[in-house]
Amino acid sequence: MKEIVIGFLGCGNVGGGVWELLQGFAPEIAHRDQLSVRVKKILVRDVNKARSCSVPRELLTTVPEDVLCDPEITLVAEFMGGEQPATEYLLRALQNGKTVVTANKVAVALNWHKLQAAAQANHVGLYYEASVCGAIPIINALMTPLQANRITKLMGIINGTTNYILSRMSAQGESYDAVLQDAQKLGLAEPDPSSDVEGMDAAYKLSIMASLAFHARVPFKAVYREGITRVTAMDIACGKEMGYVLKLLAIAKRDGNTIEVRVHPTFLPQNHPLSSVDGSFNAVYLHGHACQEMMLQGRGAGDMPTASAVVGDILHAAMVDVHVHPTFANQAEPAKELTFTNNWTTKYYIRVSAIDAPGVLSAVAGCFAKENVSIASMMQKGSVEDGRVPLVFITHAASEQAMQAALADMDPAVCRLESMIRVED
Amino acid sequence: MKEIVIGFLGCGNVGGGVWELLQGFAPEIAHRDQLSVRVKKILVRDVNKARSCSVPRELLTTVPEDVLCDPEITLVAEFMGGEQPATEYLLRALQNGKTVVTANKVAVALNWHKLQAAAQANHVGLYYEASVCGAIPIINALMTPLQANRITKLMGIINGTTNYILSRMSAQGESYDAVLQDAQKLGLAEPDPSSDVEGMDAAYKLSIMASLAFHARVPFKAVYREGITRVTAMDIACGKEMGYVLKLLAIAKRDGNTIEVRVHPTFLPQNHPLSSVDGSFNAVYLHGHACQEMMLQGRGAGDMPTASAVVGDILHAAMVDVHVHPTFANQAEPAKELTFTNNWTTKYYIRVSAIDAPGVLSAVAGCFAKENVSIASMMQKGSVEDGRVPLVFITHAASEQAMQAALADMDPAVCRLESMIRVED
Repeated sequence: MKEIVIGFLGCGNVGGGVWELLQGFAPEIAHRDQLSVRVKKILVRDVNKARSCSVPRELLTTVPEDVLCDPEITLVAEFMGGEQPATEYLLRALQNGKTVVTANKVAVALNWHKLQAAAQANHVGLYYEASVCGAIPIINALMTPLQANRITKLMGIINGTTNYILSRMSAQGESYDAVLQDAQKLGLAEPDPSSDVEGMDAAYKLSIMASLAFHARVPFKAVYREGITRVTAMDIACGKEMGYVLKLLAIAKRDGNTIEVRVHPTFLPQNHPLSSVDGSFNAVYLHGHACQEMMLQGRGAGDMPTASAVVGDILHAAMVDVHVHPTFANQAEPAKELTFTNNWTTKYYIRVSAIDAPGVLSAVAGCFAKENVSIASMMQKGSVEDGRVPLVFITHAASEQAMQAALADMDPAVCRLESMIRVED
Repeated sequence: MKEIVIGFLGCGNVGGGVWELLQGFAPEIAHRDQLSVRVKKILVRDVNKARSCSVPRELLTTVPEDVLCDPEITLVAEFMGGEQPATEYLLRALQNGKTVVTANKVAVALNWHKLQAAAQANHVGLYYEASVCGAIPIINALMTPLQANRITKLMGIINGTTNYILSRMSAQGESYDAVLQDAQKLGLAEPDPSSDVEGMDAAYKLSIMASLAFHARVPFKAVYREGITRVTAMDIACGKEMGYVLKLLAIAKRDGNTIEVRVHPTFLPQNHPLSSVDGSFNAVYLHGHACQEMMLQGRGAGDMPTASAVVGDILHAAMVDVHVHPTFANQAEPAKELTFTNNWTTKYYIRVSAIDAPGVLSAVAGCFAKENVSIASMMQKGSVEDGRVPLVFITHAASEQAMQAALADMDPAVCRLESMIRVED
């Protein structure tokens, strides 16, 4: 029987889940893979902290070198999160000839090139299935079974907190603030929810997925980002009436050498496969030139779903001795031939408050027409308030620049922009 | 640059798709993976047959040894289909030290143990992502990222032809025969559709998926099978009224050492993720103890989706030198501790024609009650015809044995069984 000796960096919820999964599963792993997995050391901040998992006290250490420099440990699994000191520790582990399995999207998204180069130079593996969408096997799918595809489009619901908030706002017409507070009480949103609701979390994950989908480094800083904090129940209701569902989407598209990557609230047609992905579920929808449409859906967060991905990587790394290194991933900068654009083409949902007077609709329509933005449908919603009436437009596909120019043309005294939400299909 | 020289067995639709995908993608593969893939020989039945793909005439051969015995060819990709002679050729390729990539579900389902044993003995790889559900990366997902799961349930819509037929019957109330004929005209059903409509195709695929999900050999012959030929528009309509959608499901469940594997028409609640998988789409839904619920959805058939899986396997096999061999897969027979049961527990949809007379409902209900089958809901559908009235029952969960006993108890002169359809959730 082959034995693999591993060290943990961190032992919070995910680390505890990995510990429990490895313990409960050990006899099966031994039986079916002739492999024994032994956790030798676990780096924590405080060895005396009460823990819900059954980790023996004697495995815990506060000295990073106990994990990073132990020659018996050949694989390091990291669940600390955050860029530092995690990245530094992972680099040291790789330089010391240890394969790394990480659940850390921030470290991978920001320092992938350093980690991959160190893995390659030291002939060890770098695995990060758990860094994106928990148990959903999207990293593996992009790297292996889907690698023969020119992927042109990838759209994901990849943040459970925001999907929970938007699903509840949509189902019950509640306000953003009310649902957020409730989600915080239920432990579904952090006390400081900004990384989720501002789209940071989704942008890290999108940077990783888009890089693998396009076989090209898509840096985190290239991701355009808009959160859900300004989403209103009224826009969700208006969209619903027009046949749309609001989601925080992470979108990556490639056309030749032009790439767009963006995270923002997005209306999707009700019959789009992503529209029925509710609550804390995650899903990634993509289109490749050979595979055509595909969607992977599942639990994108939580201790056990994330542990599922971590232990999958650990067992895989233990069984193969040859590790695949994506060629783009050790580049700090994207390839020179690539352009990242914020001037994408999409449809738009526009809600304005227009003064209730003759000629106003014509003036608004004129702003669109001047920029060649064509209107697909229009709805007057609700009644006049303070002399103003809410108008909702859905446009045909237009460029972001044209749309922004049309909105800048509007005279707020006559027609005030209330919301602009992009529409995908 | 590494060069891999490959041979094809077969060059029909899938083989042609693989050829086109490799040709169109060659510069990208060379650029990003430093790998050149050269197809040296292609075994066909008739070199003079007109082909839609651009394969050069001089690559074609009718002599199997030109592929199987050429020492320069290190990987053989097979798209002949059917058990023989494909299995024999694949065994010879493996014995000659060639890695095999196959899209052949029949060969893998029936002769997996021989193929895997030969691969293992000769230190080469056996890859078969394309044998199940086209581009959907379910084989890879089960083998790698989800391997740390005790999967208890797997349910799939894994045959596009039957899903197309049932989707159309459901949408438009058409009869089975009418839709089948139309599907044949459209090329969506074979001239002899029996392998699809009798559930054979799904049963081969289920045998492969269930084996990987349960890490145990689940033989094709263990799969209970019922096709869609007796499905009526009336049952689809009655189910719809009661909140259900009819699908041909492939179902695998494991509880301890007891396994059930079955392919049959199945009612699913309308809000089940599988219920909205329509037309020629495929999807696999599963539940694991760590990953929880997951669903993979995409194109399960077609030249290019299948080629996507084949070329994914070819590139993967070319890049790794160590091939993983599932330990169960070289066993001809399932492990001794396993039991395969046809006495599963599920809910049932029962439609009967009962004579329109006092006491009949009580008599029918008595048959259920005697076997402890409890009724969840009942509907009287339509009007009296020939003195009989259609009654539809949905039961609570009951064992197959109890259900069959209850149905056998009914007196056909009083109450004739019209349909029995299992219900999952």
